Amino acid sequence: MRDILPADKARRERVLAVIRERYLAHGFDEIETPVLEEYSRLHAGIGGDNEKLAYNVLRRGLDADAIRAAAADPAALSDLGLRYDLTVPLARFYASNRGQLPTVFRSIQIGAVWRAERPQKGRYRQFVQCDIDIMGDDSARAEAELMVASLDTVDALGLEGATVRINDRRALDWMLDSFGFTAEERPGVLITIDKLDKIGPDGVAAELRDRAVTAHAVDAFEAFLRRPQTMEINAYGERQIRKALPDGAPDEIVDHLVGIGQAVAAGRPSTGSAIDDIPLVFDPFLVRGMGYYTGTIFELAHPSVDYSLGGGGRYDGMIGRFLGQQVPAVGFSLGFERLVDLVTANSDAGAQAVVLVHDADVPVVELVAHKTALIATGARVRLERRTKNLKALLERAAADGYTAFATVPVGASDLEIKPLS
Amino acid sequence: MRDILPADKARRERVLAVIRERYLAHGFDEIETPVLEEYSRLHAGIGGDNEKLAYNVLRRGLDADAIRAAAADPAALSDLGLRYDLTVPLARFYASNRGQLPTVFRSIQIGAVWRAERPQKGRYRQFVQCDIDIMGDDSARAEAELMVASLDTVDALGLEGATVRINDRRALDWMLDSFGFTAEERPGVLITIDKLDKIGPDGVAAELRDRAVTAHAVDAFEAFLRRPQTMEINAYGERQIRKALPDGAPDEIVDHLVGIGQAVAAGRPSTGSAIDDIPLVFDPFLVRGMGYYTGTIFELAHPSVDYSLGGGGRYDGMIGRFLGQQVPAVGFSLGFERLVDLVTANSDAGAQAVVLVHDADVPVVELVAHKTALIATGARVRLERRTKNLKALLERAAADGYTAFATVPVGASDLEIKPLS
Repeated sequence: MRDILPADKARRERVLAVIRERYLAHGFDEIETPVLEEYSRLHAGIGGDNEKLAYNVLRRGLDADAIRAAAADPAALSDLGLRYDLTVPLARFYASNRGQLPTVFRSIQIGAVWRAERPQKGRYRQFVQCDIDIMGDDSARAEAELMVASLDTVDALGLEGATVRINDRRALDWMLDSFGFTAEERPGVLITIDKLDKIGPDGVAAELRDRAVTAHAVDAFEAFLRRPQTMEINAYGERQIRKALPDGAPDEIVDHLVGIGQAVAAGRPSTGSAIDDIPLVFDPFLVRGMGYYTGTIFELAHPSVDYSLGGGGRYDGMIGRFLGQQVPAVGFSLGFERLVDLVTANSDAGAQAVVLVHDADVPVVELVAHKTALIATGARVRLERRTKNLKALLERAAADGYTAFATVPVGASDLEIKPLS
Repeated sequence: MRDILPADKARRERVLAVIRERYLAHGFDEIETPVLEEYSRLHAGIGGDNEKLAYNVLRRGLDADAIRAAAADPAALSDLGLRYDLTVPLARFYASNRGQLPTVFRSIQIGAVWRAERPQKGRYRQFVQCDIDIMGDDSARAEAELMVASLDTVDALGLEGATVRINDRRALDWMLDSFGFTAEERPGVLITIDKLDKIGPDGVAAELRDRAVTAHAVDAFEAFLRRPQTMEINAYGERQIRKALPDGAPDEIVDHLVGIGQAVAAGRPSTGSAIDDIPLVFDPFLVRGMGYYTGTIFELAHPSVDYSLGGGGRYDGMIGRFLGQQVPAVGFSLGFERLVDLVTANSDAGAQAVVLVHDADVPVVELVAHKTALIATGARVRLERRTKNLKALLERAAADGYTAFATVPVGASDLEIKPLS
């Protein structure tokens, strides 16, 4: 966890304002849930590995006997915890408030989450997630709306050229099945496949053999990984999707993926509305970690970085766990902390920001009057008492986003405002 | 704690945007601190009664022996806690980051805090505070900048007519001293005086007698409370301040209060820049609960409500506890949850928000294309599949801030957009 200083905070708020404005334009509605959720809900097995990283809140009013008794049952020490993602709270929110929400509900959630990760560069224990989700729509329209809105948002942040890698959990399951892996072997095999980018086909085949999974399945999979590829890079359409999978992929899955592409093409006319010219890439080996995904999964990539800027997928089973009735759901999470690092610091163009430098003898009344008069013109104004090193003072003000300055003599009626450069 | 639904969330974000914009214009810089602070810092005696209401976070990695041992020392169960205010974290932030901050640092903090209060109407266990603070300035300029900025912000929210009640802890101490109360009696006497608005002079005198504090001091105080008042209501200036206090109030305190008034007058020219025509009221019986106040204290009042909309004061001793070096500090906290309730829901004027109502047979590609085309014109757009009760659907959309709608037939090239009314 870290303190955020003014220059960083200003950049973060600018990025958040763009994200909020774009997602609202695309018909999503912002909601907010409490930071604390019930312990039992956070530890219901939905959150995967994140459950282990949750910060739990000490139950209030425990006496010495209750604490001693908890030695055998540490879960009794907590009744609340800090959320580790925005998806579990959203499913609970939807179940609690469904009667007041539209049939198809498109949510925006922007908020901090907490995970007790090992401290490392670029990883924080408190970080902001920006999620959009669509509940109540099982059609490809939902995925397309998420992608069009997110690509538009990334464009608006000045990060044009982003692409979405897409796959479907059902395609993965079918593919592993067709190679001959058993259903029991599947979770472990997926963990290995998830490393394909890092360890390559040789590494994947070796690791699978080490795991002693069905041998002929590994052989079949390795042969498929090493097959000659003649596909157009980055093109997307039924032909490309079928070519990237073993023969005989089920129509239902392929049609859903094709439908998403067609709808994204319609929603991104500027990138050429032909389906094989859109910023989607089918990646049959994309896995994504969370166990709750049931259908499409996707990740946002940008040419300037080798990590993903966000991702998501379908989790049609989760809301049913809270509501007792199945509701299809699909979500997309922008990696806010990574986006902030990439976005260039553009201070608010147009608005003048003026530092008024004064000596100790200028009456407070005059200083406040000058400040108010300048604020009334639309400027941002900071008062600074002159220090020995005026240059350093002005440099710091410039770093804080100030664009102009004036010195304030005693009894001045007009101030001469000069650019800070 | 509660879920915040779209219409409420939109109003909250609009209010926050106004507060942020105004405070930035007045030269304050926004910062952010982590929600979790060290347990020892949250329980150092600075937070007053709020310390007892803190949510503490369970220390990670406790084994059965450690839990059993904690029965005798429950504080050992926690190493972190959720902040209960933004002032303790600010003092810690300033001590940690002083080298990177301007000599006089004006901070904005907007964020949630948590207190395990008994649930009651209008009180939440998670609520948002909006604080501005000035560190490093012991002059009346600091108080004046806080007040001018806050009054301007409240005006910008459409709540013109707010006033600030002001007092000084040193004036209270001097006054109680001059009546003959002992220093040991002072905290209890202040608790009683704080009830003056509710129980009146009779109640205050009776309660003080019940407490058996110095009898002649109570007599002197009661006589002062019952003295004939000839003061101009709401006027503010040296004469008025001296008249509201027992004779002989120290110049240092009165001058500081007068200086604040003169500077606020200079910063509020629209309310008439004569000092006795500004929205300040000297209230010699204003107490405010927190023990850390050392000088001026103030509360924001508005004619439409009988509770305060915010308040603050000087706490010149607190930063020294973290930094080991005294730094003057003064802060003002807006009661965000109360402000949100008062501010009328003004949806963003100008921006068109359109609901596109379609039947199930309209291809996804056409829907997404219509949506994108409308968004490109600057509109906010939501897709809605037609339900049996179209009227109810449109009413809900209007409640969510949508201003227009169109029905989408199959194969339409142009849509007829009609106002939602």
